[in-house]
Amino acid sequence: MATDAAAAEEADAYAELTERLERITAVQGASGVLGWDQQVMMPSGGTPARSKQLSVLSSMSHEMLTDERTGELLDACEELDLDGPESAVLRETRREYERAAAVPGELVEEMSSTASEALAAWEEAKAEDDFEAFAPYLERHVELKREYAEHVDPDRDPYEVLFEDYEPCLPLERAEDILAELKGTLVPMIDEIRASDVDVTTDAFEGTFDADAQEALSRDVLSTLGYDWEHGRLDVSSHPFTSGNQFDCRVTTRFDESDPLGALMSTIHEFGHAFYNLGLPREHYGTPLGESRDLSVHESQSRLWENQVGRSRAFWDLVLPEVRERFPDVDASVDEAYESANQVYEDNPIRVEADELTYHLHIVVRFEIERALVSGDLDVEDVPEAWNDKYEEYLGIRPGTDAEGCLQDIHWAHGNFGYFPTYSLGSVMATQLYDAASGEIDDLDGKVREGEFADLQDWLRENVHRHGARYETDELVEHATGEEFTASHFLEYVTEKYGELYDLEESV
Amino acid sequence: MATDAAAAEEADAYAELTERLERITAVQGASGVLGWDQQVMMPSGGTPARSKQLSVLSSMSHEMLTDERTGELLDACEELDLDGPESAVLRETRREYERAAAVPGELVEEMSSTASEALAAWEEAKAEDDFEAFAPYLERHVELKREYAEHVDPDRDPYEVLFEDYEPCLPLERAEDILAELKGTLVPMIDEIRASDVDVTTDAFEGTFDADAQEALSRDVLSTLGYDWEHGRLDVSSHPFTSGNQFDCRVTTRFDESDPLGALMSTIHEFGHAFYNLGLPREHYGTPLGESRDLSVHESQSRLWENQVGRSRAFWDLVLPEVRERFPDVDASVDEAYESANQVYEDNPIRVEADELTYHLHIVVRFEIERALVSGDLDVEDVPEAWNDKYEEYLGIRPGTDAEGCLQDIHWAHGNFGYFPTYSLGSVMATQLYDAASGEIDDLDGKVREGEFADLQDWLRENVHRHGARYETDELVEHATGEEFTASHFLEYVTEKYGELYDLEESV
Repeated sequence: MATDAAAAEEADAYAELTERLERITAVQGASGVLGWDQQVMMPSGGTPARSKQLSVLSSMSHEMLTDERTGELLDACEELDLDGPESAVLRETRREYERAAAVPGELVEEMSSTASEALAAWEEAKAEDDFEAFAPYLERHVELKREYAEHVDPDRDPYEVLFEDYEPCLPLERAEDILAELKGTLVPMIDEIRASDVDVTTDAFEGTFDADAQEALSRDVLSTLGYDWEHGRLDVSSHPFTSGNQFDCRVTTRFDESDPLGALMSTIHEFGHAFYNLGLPREHYGTPLGESRDLSVHESQSRLWENQVGRSRAFWDLVLPEVRERFPDVDASVDEAYESANQVYEDNPIRVEADELTYHLHIVVRFEIERALVSGDLDVEDVPEAWNDKYEEYLGIRPGTDAEGCLQDIHWAHGNFGYFPTYSLGSVMATQLYDAASGEIDDLDGKVREGEFADLQDWLRENVHRHGARYETDELVEHATGEEFTASHFLEYVTEKYGELYDLEESV
Repeated sequence: MATDAAAAEEADAYAELTERLERITAVQGASGVLGWDQQVMMPSGGTPARSKQLSVLSSMSHEMLTDERTGELLDACEELDLDGPESAVLRETRREYERAAAVPGELVEEMSSTASEALAAWEEAKAEDDFEAFAPYLERHVELKREYAEHVDPDRDPYEVLFEDYEPCLPLERAEDILAELKGTLVPMIDEIRASDVDVTTDAFEGTFDADAQEALSRDVLSTLGYDWEHGRLDVSSHPFTSGNQFDCRVTTRFDESDPLGALMSTIHEFGHAFYNLGLPREHYGTPLGESRDLSVHESQSRLWENQVGRSRAFWDLVLPEVRERFPDVDASVDEAYESANQVYEDNPIRVEADELTYHLHIVVRFEIERALVSGDLDVEDVPEAWNDKYEEYLGIRPGTDAEGCLQDIHWAHGNFGYFPTYSLGSVMATQLYDAASGEIDDLDGKVREGEFADLQDWLRENVHRHGARYETDELVEHATGEEFTASHFLEYVTEKYGELYDLEESV
């Protein structure tokens, strides 16, 4: 009897734990809706109440997670020797709990209030091209982040600890190796492209493109790709983003009347994020089994649709007629459109406007600088020069201003250090996943050309989405592709694609 | 020293209590945003996650309110003999706390889940004109509400207890007296109007009115009245409503292309609600001093703008040119427009489409029926007949279907019994407040005609909005108008207005 009672108690512990997780998810989901609303719908005067609502919800979910009872339940559940999906729930919850519990609430609040102030200062500093005005906030963030890492684990490289906030289940060393491979291949490849005589079309989309027609095109393309409007929306915000869960996942974009490709590609990118969230198992909403894997996997989903699909020739075969329907003045051929969408920019200093190749060098610059900042090898005051030197060295361009240089991104103002590498990891992973899908789907390229995305969707749902956070990143990639996570697919892909575009010598 | 320490502890108790109230308000505010989003923006598939988010937030705010600590803090603060605004905070919090703490959590949850099921059943029953399909849910609601009232106070009339959920600081007896006065005057007045030979214009707005142009007109009129777009929005929803706080208060409306007056009047009505919320003191956001008084006062604000302003001849002088700008085909004179906006309908069975007179008899019917249901004097199965008989008796019309009869309103499906009377109380209060404002503002009628609303806005802010929930309803009305809350202003107003319109004998 005593044993039965103990067993029942243990089973209850798992039920109580998942109920607690569902409540935490609900509160975080509510914050997500409030955040979406703030960026998309809220009148500007609403800020004071909204800030209060968001900070209360965030402290409540933090309290629920770090509550003693969470620890007790985790201990009790770990006694049960659960395996399969349940053990993944415990693994993920244990990791989050330990990290959250290790950091004092006051530090969390200080980081959050520093972020609010730093964001305001960054916006102004960027507008005024005044790095010095932002420097003290960056300094403070770096100090707080070191302190944070110290709480989590005083014995490890603090940057490694920070990186794990965005990619907890891939060793930093692996990220480093991949970034080093990218840098090693891409720097000379870009040099060669710059020296190439080939005349790649760059102006297939010149002129003025009405924002409403662009929006209609974005909606057409979302429908073509398979966005489920019963579970989503498209809106406009100053920075495109995706927000939501498996029942309601919304995308935003922005329209520049001189650059229709920008909005189109960003819409497809956000579609990839949303399509991932919408593919998470509905029956597991509220536990890690119903949540997405971390940022590199998430980025692999957005990049796969943006790059592997959206920048393919097959896709331009499909989409150019849709573009022409909205913009009858466009008279580019499919090849010209494809070339324009894949041109390697000569002198673009801005990450979010970069092509598939230069993009990773933008990331490498940031990675090297933020690592050196956190380790103390670089002082905040020396960031602008380090930034510009690295741009010159890797990309052959020197930003004219800090606004177009080290002030361009919001991440450091937010206090996000260790986030950038996941962008490159995601792109690399996207290629590996797409190659695996191509191997299993008969004539995937032809299907893209015909707008038949069902097989690709099914493959992604089956191999990535339905697992939620059941597998760690490595394991997930290996399950899906049959091999370890590797940069080789990406390097082959770009060598072949850009070799053909720019008539390069085979070099990988 | 001991006394100093005790004093400090007591002061801390008040600070801790208000901080707790601010957190509760923040969570309720978050629910408000989620509710607005659900009705205005959310894709239909989002329901499962949204329901979970809303129920978690509502149980969290209930837990925070009924937490033992809230009771301890209230006890400690009441020892302090605070007066002025602080005593109002304690009075309001004590009332809410006692009521919430008296009701078991399971009953709250059961009422809430019954409401979800009943709402779905009601929608279908209304669509199918099938009262019997809805009857079991109504039955269940009535039982649960009796149980609820029993928990709150077993010694009082349960309907009285329910009424206090919507109007906690006005005795039900007063509401009854006022409704009886309205019924006594309006039934014969409407009879007389029906018998009148006067030819009041009813068709100033016939034809088809494009929804986009109606929306533009609604925006024009909101701007004319003084809606602050930095703190608000206008959107479309299937039922018009207002949602928000003093920083961000949004209105919705709906457009019927054959009835432009409906949307216009409903927009003005919601403006009144929003203008009240936006006038609440910002520095008190989160405590009762920054919250609106209850439903009858809230309705007084919406009705004042809708009826006293929006259905006045002066307003039609002002607004008809705006209407014509959007709808050049409208060729009615100001008098004709005024008459159309004030016609007393011959055979309208629908409350939300009623005029200023018949409206209150729609309310009286509901009030009498819900009282009899709760007391047990009327069985659920007999509701349709009782409804139709009362409509025949008071309004001289017999609804052709239950869909147009006792199934028309959402309130009972929601489980709201005791809500309806606040609509009439609000209209009555609106007249009294407007008369007081007219007495203090030089030529208010002329100012309305010129679109100069600043004095009226200031008067409402000064006499109503800025007080939040500091005063109870009675006290607030007396402060603002110099006399007790009374129906006499309303009765004089309608006697004069409709006497002139329909050439009636003076009868009040």
